[in-house]
Amino acid sequence: MPVPLLKESDVDVLVIGAGPAGLMCAQGLARAGVNVRIIDKRPGKVAAGQADGIQPRTIEVLQSYGLAERLLREGNQMHMAAFYDPSPQGGIHRTGRAPDINAPTARYPFEVTLHQGAIEAIFLDCLRSFGKEVERPVVPESIEVTTDPVVLKNPQAHAITVAIKDLDAPGGTEIIHAKYVVGADGAHSWVRKEMGIAMEGEQTDYVWGVVDMIPDTDFPDIRNRCAIHSNNGSCMIIPREGDVVRLYIQLTDQDVRNVTGRVDMGKFNAEKLLEVAKKSFYPYRIKAHGDVQWWTIYIIGQRVAAKFASHERVFIAGDACHTHSPKAGQGMNASMNDTHNLIWKLTHVLRGWADMSLLKTYEFERRKYAQDLIDFDRKFAALFSSKPKSEDNPDGVTQEEFLDAFRAFGAFTSGIGIQYAPSLIVNATHQTVASRLIIGGRILPQSVIRAADARPFELQDLLPSDTRFKILVFTGDIRDASQMEKVNELANKLGREDSFLRKFGKRQDEVYDMFSICSTRKEEVNYTDMPPILRSHWSKVLLDDIDSTGKIGGGVYDKYGIGSEGAIVVIRPDGYVGVVAPLNDVTDLERYFSGFSVKS
Amino acid sequence: MPVPLLKESDVDVLVIGAGPAGLMCAQGLARAGVNVRIIDKRPGKVAAGQADGIQPRTIEVLQSYGLAERLLREGNQMHMAAFYDPSPQGGIHRTGRAPDINAPTARYPFEVTLHQGAIEAIFLDCLRSFGKEVERPVVPESIEVTTDPVVLKNPQAHAITVAIKDLDAPGGTEIIHAKYVVGADGAHSWVRKEMGIAMEGEQTDYVWGVVDMIPDTDFPDIRNRCAIHSNNGSCMIIPREGDVVRLYIQLTDQDVRNVTGRVDMGKFNAEKLLEVAKKSFYPYRIKAHGDVQWWTIYIIGQRVAAKFASHERVFIAGDACHTHSPKAGQGMNASMNDTHNLIWKLTHVLRGWADMSLLKTYEFERRKYAQDLIDFDRKFAALFSSKPKSEDNPDGVTQEEFLDAFRAFGAFTSGIGIQYAPSLIVNATHQTVASRLIIGGRILPQSVIRAADARPFELQDLLPSDTRFKILVFTGDIRDASQMEKVNELANKLGREDSFLRKFGKRQDEVYDMFSICSTRKEEVNYTDMPPILRSHWSKVLLDDIDSTGKIGGGVYDKYGIGSEGAIVVIRPDGYVGVVAPLNDVTDLERYFSGFSVKS
Repeated sequence: MPVPLLKESDVDVLVIGAGPAGLMCAQGLARAGVNVRIIDKRPGKVAAGQADGIQPRTIEVLQSYGLAERLLREGNQMHMAAFYDPSPQGGIHRTGRAPDINAPTARYPFEVTLHQGAIEAIFLDCLRSFGKEVERPVVPESIEVTTDPVVLKNPQAHAITVAIKDLDAPGGTEIIHAKYVVGADGAHSWVRKEMGIAMEGEQTDYVWGVVDMIPDTDFPDIRNRCAIHSNNGSCMIIPREGDVVRLYIQLTDQDVRNVTGRVDMGKFNAEKLLEVAKKSFYPYRIKAHGDVQWWTIYIIGQRVAAKFASHERVFIAGDACHTHSPKAGQGMNASMNDTHNLIWKLTHVLRGWADMSLLKTYEFERRKYAQDLIDFDRKFAALFSSKPKSEDNPDGVTQEEFLDAFRAFGAFTSGIGIQYAPSLIVNATHQTVASRLIIGGRILPQSVIRAADARPFELQDLLPSDTRFKILVFTGDIRDASQMEKVNELANKLGREDSFLRKFGKRQDEVYDMFSICSTRKEEVNYTDMPPILRSHWSKVLLDDIDSTGKIGGGVYDKYGIGSEGAIVVIRPDGYVGVVAPLNDVTDLERYFSGFSVKS
Repeated sequence: MPVPLLKESDVDVLVIGAGPAGLMCAQGLARAGVNVRIIDKRPGKVAAGQADGIQPRTIEVLQSYGLAERLLREGNQMHMAAFYDPSPQGGIHRTGRAPDINAPTARYPFEVTLHQGAIEAIFLDCLRSFGKEVERPVVPESIEVTTDPVVLKNPQAHAITVAIKDLDAPGGTEIIHAKYVVGADGAHSWVRKEMGIAMEGEQTDYVWGVVDMIPDTDFPDIRNRCAIHSNNGSCMIIPREGDVVRLYIQLTDQDVRNVTGRVDMGKFNAEKLLEVAKKSFYPYRIKAHGDVQWWTIYIIGQRVAAKFASHERVFIAGDACHTHSPKAGQGMNASMNDTHNLIWKLTHVLRGWADMSLLKTYEFERRKYAQDLIDFDRKFAALFSSKPKSEDNPDGVTQEEFLDAFRAFGAFTSGIGIQYAPSLIVNATHQTVASRLIIGGRILPQSVIRAADARPFELQDLLPSDTRFKILVFTGDIRDASQMEKVNELANKLGREDSFLRKFGKRQDEVYDMFSICSTRKEEVNYTDMPPILRSHWSKVLLDDIDSTGKIGGGVYDKYGIGSEGAIVVIRPDGYVGVVAPLNDVTDLERYFSGFSVKS
């Protein structure tokens, strides 16, 4: 009998693992038209439980891909946090309420909770709209990156060989030649191990239980995020979609550890977890209405991978490179934001627009964030797991300390605080030109008015994650003749053959999208006055003005710290400010794009 | 050979005509679970052209059925109007810009333009989600309403016999026994003629041309609604979805009439229409980029049907009972709002909840509105068709007169101004209790905060068109003991067996949905303090407060003119305020519901 030929194929990017990090990656690449495949070892998608909190910044990111609408429709929103402490009369009492999100610039000033299966379904339907499906149950069996330096340096080479096996097909092994591989295969990542990347950090001693249920209770804050410190242990409430509520319940060593000190899952069940919770809730009563939907026990681990990439060919993302406590609601958010950072970089390199050096910034930016996150998480978890301060426990944490920490950590818990350090793609030289924009931070949400039709828009919605750099030209008031002269000069410079616009974009609108933002009033502006290179379409001229109701818009120059003389702001394809320049000097823009762009 | 049996069937409601009025009707009834069929003589849906402006109030109505999201995504928005007049230098010049919508309470302060085919597609997909399709091409052949008074009085009797014919099926005649028929079959309505209902009013002398195209122009207001008065005729610009623009072009008698004085379509074509427009635009240039997409010529007719119903069994709606000029953007809006008014009334009667007398209010409310609309339209059309005032034409209309009229007509052009007169279902006795709410007008949009989780909501979104009456109990501050006492008293009254809540609703939540709205702060309220009959679910307690950002909500008591002593506001299933009562006296509520409700 003839030996059957092994199935063999080429792909640009192979994503391993279809959790939030992998799905975000695959949808972003598919959207960009990249040749991508995604495999997962699980036969079906997650049905319940697991991570479920979406932070304000992550909602902005999902919105930039057009995916937030459904999330907001299906999910629960947490707007308020409530704090409970031991009461002098015994049991607990409320010491205060505060906004759940402390990030004044948040576009969505709340967190969304929705079970992971529903979140994954949003991505799966999105992938389907691009004609892609997750291939499952499929496991990777081997991975090999070429050692040939010439091949490694060629961004278009299929430098990686991966053998995968379709578990549903007998003998279903396939050899895939991939240009790039993204390992988003979870905390026990196979890709990470194959690449020999170590996890750094350790597990803590904190053990927590989690219960998802529809509660029957007289507790007045059951639909708010609650931090309950009682003399019978700590508890956190995370309200979820519909009438479901999640409880995080602090467990003691005697609750969960066997004589050898190891956590013994067998010692526990949902009823026992609820018994512990009931003691914390006293004098309020709480029980499950019907069955408990899901429960688990976990030990907090806080670890970061030593490297996030191998040869700029194989990348790891999500739980594969960082794990932390779920209570700060960070895990899934960090995971999706990892690959959000990577999507456009892979796309630009694959299209031949950018040098492979661009890929080095993935580890540089995301590993630092993961480390900062762990540091934050360590403090937060310790604080939350501590006993409340009392006469018996003078070293305990006071409600004030906890509340202060809760507020100070707002930038982290909201995800808004991400600021990437200076690099190839973050140039903060001209910070003063837009003094209130954080270079390396995400572009601040702000309503603007479109000049041609006075329609208000959230600026972020005009800057979608479409892999293009966005160039915002703040022209000042174009009815001012001297300012108009500067704008015309800029238009001339940008129109030259050696301008970055012409040099690095095959067609200008493939790599860049450009808007002009004038400080002229909507009643007086004629969008037709803007030089053509600054308005490729009637929709590209915007105004710093209020809308017809006087309620929306106005103040973008002020909010970004831009004066009447104008400025140019370049926003990376992932929504982070890359570089800022004065209106009359594009030298730094040329330098910025020359740093990683490839001539077309 | 045996004679083939004629197909025969029963239906609760037969809708004839699948334009905007018929589609609105069918989706509303299907949504309510009513047994409905809809037929149309056209083989396919409208592809381009025809009416296309959706007013702010109609957007609210579509939103109440969950249909606004797609409209807003696909449509163009008109926020600004611009006015052009003859310039002393020749040609035209801009005399000013003003908000397109002058209705301070509009939730959507703009009009949406989208071609009728796209609007119908929203309805068709919605119908499909309820398992319904428009049957086409199907024509009605005969209609007969029984003359037996006993049958006519029985709301559940199949009192109407309609023969229809499927044009695609040979011998496809079917006899339908319907309880009710809605004739939404256009300006040449077959149903209207069969019922012997006359149209009152007449055609005007105004002849206009319409052109849809993508323009190539230097006119700076091409994306605004424009009223251009030139010495070469009037022109109106209505920007549309994508880059399409619609021009309404005033034509002179010599342009279009033949020697006998009749309008001769053969005298015209798209190029000739554009030639007329070009003269009005001078000194700006305008031409079509590519082909003209659609064009027509029409004479303004302003007519209202003498009756809107026959025996409370056969109703006519939309163009079948009123026609007017398209420039005020009224036609399609009035049509959809006709059947929006009828849907819940038919549903309540069919479910045995309401007396047939409820159906009389359809003609009472909608015919008066149609007449008011025609009066308005007559003035507006005359004004718009007039020559501008000048030395040669001292009787012409000045720009100021036109602008004043444009502003004064804001309530009509927005659709916000609809106020139904007192009737069985509009009781204005206690107007002073909610002094700023218009009884018979739509409930004013307003953001409120949900007590249990501090999440902000637009109140209108909590009052969807689900055929239920909405009872809003404004409780005042429930932390005030004397106010809480009144609330408890009310709860006791509502809980009695002879209360309207119990008497007229098989299950309370089938006919009524109830919310309480407290003036307690979100940091202090416990939703669990509200008596159970006023909170059937944790989501039913609302607050007059601002959200965590301080930007949304607050002021609902003030906006509605309700004092700290509270009030009860009943909102009809179509979103119009039906009756208002003081917190301590439900007599008028009992009287209101007893007027048309049937005991269960």
